[in-house]
Amino acid sequence: MISQIFKITLDHITTKNNMNNNAYTAIIGLGSMGMGMANSCLAAGLMTWGFDIDPQKQQDFLLAGGQPGGITEVASELNIVVLVMVNSAQMNSVLFGDHALAPILRPGTVILGCPTMSPDDAKDIDLKLSAMGLHYLDSPISGGSAKAANGALTIMASGSDQAFGAAQAALDAMSEKVFRLGDQIGQGSAMKVVNQLLAGVHIASTAEAITFGLKQGIPAEQILQVITQCAGNSWMFENRGAHIVDGDYTPHSSVEIFVKDLGIVSEIARASRSYTPLAAAALQEFLAASGSGLGNEDDSAVAKVYARNSDVDLPKK
Amino acid sequence: MISQIFKITLDHITTKNNMNNNAYTAIIGLGSMGMGMANSCLAAGLMTWGFDIDPQKQQDFLLAGGQPGGITEVASELNIVVLVMVNSAQMNSVLFGDHALAPILRPGTVILGCPTMSPDDAKDIDLKLSAMGLHYLDSPISGGSAKAANGALTIMASGSDQAFGAAQAALDAMSEKVFRLGDQIGQGSAMKVVNQLLAGVHIASTAEAITFGLKQGIPAEQILQVITQCAGNSWMFENRGAHIVDGDYTPHSSVEIFVKDLGIVSEIARASRSYTPLAAAALQEFLAASGSGLGNEDDSAVAKVYARNSDVDLPKK
Repeated sequence: MISQIFKITLDHITTKNNMNNNAYTAIIGLGSMGMGMANSCLAAGLMTWGFDIDPQKQQDFLLAGGQPGGITEVASELNIVVLVMVNSAQMNSVLFGDHALAPILRPGTVILGCPTMSPDDAKDIDLKLSAMGLHYLDSPISGGSAKAANGALTIMASGSDQAFGAAQAALDAMSEKVFRLGDQIGQGSAMKVVNQLLAGVHIASTAEAITFGLKQGIPAEQILQVITQCAGNSWMFENRGAHIVDGDYTPHSSVEIFVKDLGIVSEIARASRSYTPLAAAALQEFLAASGSGLGNEDDSAVAKVYARNSDVDLPKK
Repeated sequence: MISQIFKITLDHITTKNNMNNNAYTAIIGLGSMGMGMANSCLAAGLMTWGFDIDPQKQQDFLLAGGQPGGITEVASELNIVVLVMVNSAQMNSVLFGDHALAPILRPGTVILGCPTMSPDDAKDIDLKLSAMGLHYLDSPISGGSAKAANGALTIMASGSDQAFGAAQAALDAMSEKVFRLGDQIGQGSAMKVVNQLLAGVHIASTAEAITFGLKQGIPAEQILQVITQCAGNSWMFENRGAHIVDGDYTPHSSVEIFVKDLGIVSEIARASRSYTPLAAAALQEFLAASGSGLGNEDDSAVAKVYARNSDVDLPKK
């Protein structure tokens, strides 16, 4: 049944393909970021497929207007493949592992790699894709799930003119800003890692400042209200500080993401001899959060480590 | 000669006093913050005296329209005294040391304490002033010298209704926002210390992120341009990051200020058993900057420690 609908759709694709700048797009990974990005592609009028190892998410996207069909069936029709998984290992698995996707894509297809990874991992993926005649765009994303859902992400991208050209329709659909950082794969990833160094340190400093203030007897909501108007403010203080004040640790991004991303900072720093004492200290706090069972909570749950260590009560939901 | 002008002026004061809500204001300490605040009081039409241990600064303010006269002559006429020095030790010295100011002020005068200090130091000063019939407003400031000059500071204040009432004209003249944090002395200072914890960590994280990015081959101006649009941004990244990109370490605030302020964080944290690993790590970077001769440069010169430790070249002026 699905297969039949799929065939009808493929005819439709072929027609639209000629009209619509080759923007047959698949989003692989329908988590909080990927689902929003897939919906943004739909909203922009792109023929969009969504795939996830969780069949429920795939079904949800189908009901939202996604195209039907299995990934092996549709692969050769795609022009743009956006990979929105957690790390480069998962990306390598999808592209080159069992049931590898890369070999069944049409040459000339562009692959957008959105996970935070080291520039070396990005270069390694690019080498393998280039050998198959595929374009790679090193295109990590920033902005959170709300911006993903509104097509308002920031994308830090590098790659060839061909890769940018082939990806244009999806970039337009998903993002408010695309920083074109150069033609070398790895330049996008390097910038994203710089961003994650700051993001991780600032989530931990948010937790540290709020618990320190609580210990001095200042109400948490007063800290949030005042500091967001002062020179101590940060994007993360404003955003994650609100999670702490609301006592709401529903994961938008998780503690594990920062164990991973500050781990990437640490690996690059060790390899390149780059001095990063605050990132190293912040990593320990996320490790303590994960080690004490908070890994899948919102990254702001690192505040629970601080609260325990200072014996203060965080606001309750 | 000065004394004569002073007497004429005092007559003028007495007249204006009845018209102008008792806003005879002295700013003590005409550094980059105090001079701007004194000028803001002038601009708001307050009768304003400016005092500094540097006679040149005092002369500069006189030429800008400040009232003439020595501090011992004018003390008993003042209604508002704003202390803009570096720390509580200097404040104690002015108020209670040799040539103590507090005993020659008129009872009912309000003293605004602007230095960053521990809540306990603020409470100690208040006890001594209260015993003399003087009001104290715990009123640390945030915003930098440009905002000071434009009457656009943020003030984190606590104190009695009488203290707020007596200080109103000067608060209005100097600030864009006054956060009224309670009636207990120490609440203003506690909030300011929370702000400085974040500010110090974020200046160091700015230096760390830019040098880390430089080490990965990303141009510094590109890092500034991109990250200010991303979730890694902070008020300090935007402000001090620009100093680093411009290679301009002219001191707006200095390395020594953060040795002091993160030192206050550390002392409060030790006394109250408050867990502050990032503030502790950042303090070490400012100590390294000061210890290697950079104490009087802009606080963003902490980047020179990072650059040396990672062997990268910072942008030149």
